[in-house]
Amino acid sequence: MTDAEIIAEPGVPQVIISREFAATPAVLFRAYTEPDLLARWIGPRGYETTVDVLEPRDGGRWRYTHTVPDGDRYSFFGLYHGDPTPRQIVQTYEFDRQPGHVYLNTITFEARGSRALMRQNTVFQSVEDRDVYVLGGMEKGIHVSMAKLDELVTSLQQ
Amino acid sequence: MTDAEIIAEPGVPQVIISREFAATPAVLFRAYTEPDLLARWIGPRGYETTVDVLEPRDGGRWRYTHTVPDGDRYSFFGLYHGDPTPRQIVQTYEFDRQPGHVYLNTITFEARGSRALMRQNTVFQSVEDRDVYVLGGMEKGIHVSMAKLDELVTSLQQ
Repeated sequence: MTDAEIIAEPGVPQVIISREFAATPAVLFRAYTEPDLLARWIGPRGYETTVDVLEPRDGGRWRYTHTVPDGDRYSFFGLYHGDPTPRQIVQTYEFDRQPGHVYLNTITFEARGSRALMRQNTVFQSVEDRDVYVLGGMEKGIHVSMAKLDELVTSLQQ
Repeated sequence: MTDAEIIAEPGVPQVIISREFAATPAVLFRAYTEPDLLARWIGPRGYETTVDVLEPRDGGRWRYTHTVPDGDRYSFFGLYHGDPTPRQIVQTYEFDRQPGHVYLNTITFEARGSRALMRQNTVFQSVEDRDVYVLGGMEKGIHVSMAKLDELVTSLQQ
């Protein structure tokens, strides 16, 4: 298993995450755009995740909710700009605990032989918003989600 | 007339434009969200501008087209994330000559006595995209559009 690389430069309102998977872009695309598959990998272990809406088309909406073990809930939601494809997904992103703070997320999948490189490029309205995201446990969360995604796509690929 | 301030720092995928107008946030909001008003100020002088779609609501679409004097046309389009209000408009942005390159644009209007400060914060997927935007005549275009907007909102305010 390879670890995700996370780039968050000082003073730049951006985070770039990249990781290689033992799966094709088509399989990764399924894991990002099929509600039952997305619910299996997005977010921390031990949380219950429901995908409330997922409309992978230009102008479509998406929303998922995590329920933490004490019963508390929080949601992320947004819109797809352009039709998502196994090459590129572009989506807006908002966290319900930070209303009005919006990110733009671009996810690309690039074939590397029988594997694929996933790259997630997130840009924020400000460096402050980026720092809230990074300091809010993003790094641990990303590594956990990416490990769960790895397990899922490896099993789907077989 | 005050000039727009434009901030585009090296190595940062962002442009911030700010300018004060002799109009309230409500009047500025109308100029951004009513198709016939928007067509009167957006873009260079001497171009014909049509607002093809403008749905100022969460998930709504927008699109406008410039026709240059030689008959060539180009369009900008995107989606509204969240309901636009006289406080904040958040929209995705794409130029039809650069398909798949998307910006996130946040426009805020802040009352300053009988005037208002407009702030447009644009973040790009990369510094390269930001530089294409800046080098593509953005600065001149912004100053012209802002001068036209100033004339429009000053007349509406009276």
